[in-house]
Amino acid sequence: MKIAILGFGVVGRGAYEAILHHACGVQVKRILDLRVPEGMEDVVTTDYNTILNDPEIEAVAEAIGGLHPAYEYITRAIDAGKHVVSANKHLICHYYRDLHERAAARGVDLRFTPSVGGGIPWLMNLRRTKRCDRILSLCGIMNGTTNYILDSMLTRGIDFSDALKEAQALGYAEADPSADIDGLDVQRKCAISASIAFDAVLTEEDVPTFGIRHITKEDVARFDAMGYVCKLMAFAEERDGRITASVEPYLLPKTATEGAVRTNFNCITLVGERVGRLSFIGQGAGSAPTGMALAEDLIDIATANGKTPVSLTPAVIDGTIRPHMYYVRTSAKLPSACILHRMEQAIITKPMTPADIHALYTTIQATDPDAFIAGLDPDVASDARLC
Amino acid sequence: MKIAILGFGVVGRGAYEAILHHACGVQVKRILDLRVPEGMEDVVTTDYNTILNDPEIEAVAEAIGGLHPAYEYITRAIDAGKHVVSANKHLICHYYRDLHERAAARGVDLRFTPSVGGGIPWLMNLRRTKRCDRILSLCGIMNGTTNYILDSMLTRGIDFSDALKEAQALGYAEADPSADIDGLDVQRKCAISASIAFDAVLTEEDVPTFGIRHITKEDVARFDAMGYVCKLMAFAEERDGRITASVEPYLLPKTATEGAVRTNFNCITLVGERVGRLSFIGQGAGSAPTGMALAEDLIDIATANGKTPVSLTPAVIDGTIRPHMYYVRTSAKLPSACILHRMEQAIITKPMTPADIHALYTTIQATDPDAFIAGLDPDVASDARLC
Repeated sequence: MKIAILGFGVVGRGAYEAILHHACGVQVKRILDLRVPEGMEDVVTTDYNTILNDPEIEAVAEAIGGLHPAYEYITRAIDAGKHVVSANKHLICHYYRDLHERAAARGVDLRFTPSVGGGIPWLMNLRRTKRCDRILSLCGIMNGTTNYILDSMLTRGIDFSDALKEAQALGYAEADPSADIDGLDVQRKCAISASIAFDAVLTEEDVPTFGIRHITKEDVARFDAMGYVCKLMAFAEERDGRITASVEPYLLPKTATEGAVRTNFNCITLVGERVGRLSFIGQGAGSAPTGMALAEDLIDIATANGKTPVSLTPAVIDGTIRPHMYYVRTSAKLPSACILHRMEQAIITKPMTPADIHALYTTIQATDPDAFIAGLDPDVASDARLC
Repeated sequence: MKIAILGFGVVGRGAYEAILHHACGVQVKRILDLRVPEGMEDVVTTDYNTILNDPEIEAVAEAIGGLHPAYEYITRAIDAGKHVVSANKHLICHYYRDLHERAAARGVDLRFTPSVGGGIPWLMNLRRTKRCDRILSLCGIMNGTTNYILDSMLTRGIDFSDALKEAQALGYAEADPSADIDGLDVQRKCAISASIAFDAVLTEEDVPTFGIRHITKEDVARFDAMGYVCKLMAFAEERDGRITASVEPYLLPKTATEGAVRTNFNCITLVGERVGRLSFIGQGAGSAPTGMALAEDLIDIATANGKTPVSLTPAVIDGTIRPHMYYVRTSAKLPSACILHRMEQAIITKPMTPADIHALYTTIQATDPDAFIAGLDPDVASDARLC
């Protein structure tokens, strides 16, 4: 399927890269942008009509951002009978009904998986799940900027304003970060998610929203001392056809799933009547994840039945790829060559391959059948207390 | 699409329920079982030939379990030109190459999403992701029985044998739990996942495996004191066409994503070159989740292009569905009617609706523009220290 990408910025380039480097049934014929990079004159155009009037181009990927002129570009594409994919949560939320009605009237597909959760295939899984389950509720961390700020304030005890400056320096926040820190970005993603989940249309007005603009490091320290973590959470729930949705800072136990969500990651959860709780954690934004998610939506459109052939080449096994240290609790005497550190009743090994640790275990078992072995995660292996 | 379910046990019934109660483009015409429940004589049959010879039946869902006669039932279905879905990890792993070659030769679809991760759409998302990304590695908790055991030992300080008995009483473990506690179940799921992820065929022999049979509560307490948690983890990684895969108890920091995975839940992660880390958390087994996942695979087969219409009915908003308590840190004086408890510089409210908390916030802001508000998770709200 030949497609055009509208906008060759961060997201557009990510989509282009993903499609270019994988044989996925989708080909980029044109890219629309204001500027034509040197050497790309055969692909990049400044004239939208060459795309609209090209019967070979079956779909467009909108990567312009904002409400206008993105809205005009998308509606002209739909009018021209082309499928549309988009990562633009503001546009999709604001014109949800209008764009869906136009696409349905024209018989084209409209997909926007990366508009909520970036690289996380949240909306696709939400849609898929509800085909034979009932979605009872959804919730989660849908904004990486604010998660980065809250996580930094917690892990390093810094001020809100310092955390925000860091986020801006890292490209996780805009020069004007209001949409993120006042919760508007999450408000839109919550409305989109709830609309899909509950077969209805929610607008921004239906989602009462608080942001994190007023949180202080004293607030964060107080919560931490009590065993809680504060996250900016979206919620939506349905009961008997009635829906409630909201966005707010929320206190959770540190041991909650959301408590382990670091830096700019997102974590979104659905509760289905049959499937129960299903959580998705990943990069909520960024050129590569978001661009790739846009490409995946295009492939979903292109692929009838979603049949993907399965390769049957035999695997080439190589255990030296990932040697790591082990904790071995045993009364057996062990060859000192493999020992990095001795503890009471246990040792820490040097990095070992699967073949080596299994060989060692076999010799240990002869003397101590109750011996216990555990691999060490890098953060555990580097713990000074083990050395 | 009309289908037949083979086996009317736990998983078969879950699939039947899911399909029956949702308009999903799939209809159960026949169920094969040894026993015909009263009142279901028009659906349940003991004669497989009536299914094989019925041209209306396009697919079968194998919910028999084990290697034989499940293998025979599936191969006869493929020979008869019917698509096959299965939750049977032992069968799929053991006959991976054989079943795929047969299905490809006959031109039918073979799907087995619930064979790894039960209700979690892990394999479907793994397949979908690799269409335009390269999978670098995967890892995770793939067995609910052992996670339940390890989690119980940690949270309640009980013995391995007591935790195992509890798991058996709850139906999370078989009378002979060896496949779970010796890691064989995870070994199969790891082989299947790696085969899909890396376009190759791994057999059980390619996955060196340790179980948790020898872990003691003293081991668990020692890890906990050091800030670690022990989980039974599967790993697989590829480098330049070479693969390593293994299953072992593994020590992670408590703050790791896997650290928050409770009871019988699974947590499976892929690392893609473009998408980065993507984690899926949910119920790894059980009638409703697994049966539903089987139904979803059938719908994927039935649905050309995966087009699912989007409903545009306006949402009916009702904020009284989910009132909850809030932490309000402010210097403003608050109406005592909403106060449950006073703290230093803050109050805990009684349960409030979104409309009420936003109205309260508006009045607070007039006096104290820096006020901060956070909702309370139920586990936080019930914390005695707040009352």
